[in-house]
Amino acid sequence: MSNPTAAILIIGNEILSGRTQDVNVQFIAKGVAELGIRLEEVRVVPDIPARIIGAVNELRAAYTMLFTTGGIGPTHDDITSECVAAAFGVPLLLHEPTAAVMRERWGERVNDARLRMAMMPEGAEPIKNEASIAPGFTIGNVHVMAGVPRIMQSMFQALAPSLPRGQRIEMRAVHGIGVLEGSIAARLEQIQARFPQLDLGSYPFKRDERWGVTLVAKGTDIPALDAALAETTALIAAEGVAPMPGEPD
Amino acid sequence: MSNPTAAILIIGNEILSGRTQDVNVQFIAKGVAELGIRLEEVRVVPDIPARIIGAVNELRAAYTMLFTTGGIGPTHDDITSECVAAAFGVPLLLHEPTAAVMRERWGERVNDARLRMAMMPEGAEPIKNEASIAPGFTIGNVHVMAGVPRIMQSMFQALAPSLPRGQRIEMRAVHGIGVLEGSIAARLEQIQARFPQLDLGSYPFKRDERWGVTLVAKGTDIPALDAALAETTALIAAEGVAPMPGEPD
Repeated sequence: MSNPTAAILIIGNEILSGRTQDVNVQFIAKGVAELGIRLEEVRVVPDIPARIIGAVNELRAAYTMLFTTGGIGPTHDDITSECVAAAFGVPLLLHEPTAAVMRERWGERVNDARLRMAMMPEGAEPIKNEASIAPGFTIGNVHVMAGVPRIMQSMFQALAPSLPRGQRIEMRAVHGIGVLEGSIAARLEQIQARFPQLDLGSYPFKRDERWGVTLVAKGTDIPALDAALAETTALIAAEGVAPMPGEPD
Repeated sequence: MSNPTAAILIIGNEILSGRTQDVNVQFIAKGVAELGIRLEEVRVVPDIPARIIGAVNELRAAYTMLFTTGGIGPTHDDITSECVAAAFGVPLLLHEPTAAVMRERWGERVNDARLRMAMMPEGAEPIKNEASIAPGFTIGNVHVMAGVPRIMQSMFQALAPSLPRGQRIEMRAVHGIGVLEGSIAARLEQIQARFPQLDLGSYPFKRDERWGVTLVAKGTDIPALDAALAETTALIAAEGVAPMPGEPD
């Protein structure tokens, strides 16, 4: 398929320590899917320059675009901007228009630490947002965003209109409560074989102490998606269970 | 530090599509931290053999151990076991003791699809669990677990006693509601400089429409952790805010 591709790099000791539950991946994943962008990889690395620089360079080369989250605040452990500059081999400079906004809004509270949030790699463009004065930035195909979910979300919304788009990737799902994966696997594989242009996934769940399965068809071919949904729905009905149409999750 | 290291590989189209919110990373992250194992990387890759095989081989070489989640069920999209076998260059074989348990428990419901869950790379040892009959498995330093959280958790608990351990990595945290990161960044950096054996992190949050910051000290040197906590607590108090001791999150 010719959809643009994306990766997410989470710069996050707090994720690796288990302190914080990441919620940014799911938000970005849904956001890019709506634009027809295929999310193909996520990595979480610690706040170590060599690890960040290496991952930025690997991922920006491998995919149409890279989103990073985390590490662009004012404290000593916020090292993403300098690492992205190093990855691109350019200096980290004060972005004067951003510094001017900070001075106007924050007055004498602007200190060296806060000005770090106006530092960007040479050639970067700020990603403005409604949640904070300090912007993210885009350099090349790399979009550098905050780690705090509400700020990240605002930055992503600001960025979305300028991202390259592909044919929208849609999902169709049906649930079968009481259906066991192992009972339908062979017939499900036959449906997958009839729709090679789609990804058919099977996801078991347990609800009210009963196992069930969600069958998800994913792709860009709408008539095929609808036909596959009809077949997965019939597959569940054939198990003597009432299929429940619904959201993929 | 000489703590053992770990990575997590999530085999998960459902994470990359945004359909599913991952919760396995945080569970494993907390679990290994208690054992003194340092989680150093997480990757999410799609259900594509070359991607899985490549990531397994990269990560098992780079870290003391690798945990994988997802892709060991009975359906066509469950391809983790065969990919791990390929990564190790060994055949995928029916694990007879597991197949025997399945036949005993499931009787004539045992079909080819369900027997796929008894297939393991040659030389693998099953990871038994209380949530399902189908086990995970360990081969070399790679621990292959289910993606369904309750099954994964049961497998991790079964596995934990046999994992190599290091000195326990502890955290000390203090919250300051109304404290802004940019105001304390310089002094926080000085505290970090005085405790080079610790990782000091600063994490902004918004609660009841007020910004605040959580300062987290992480490491294995308990006296240093307690001393650093006293200093970060004093730093928040110096801002005219009552420090709130508490959990890191």
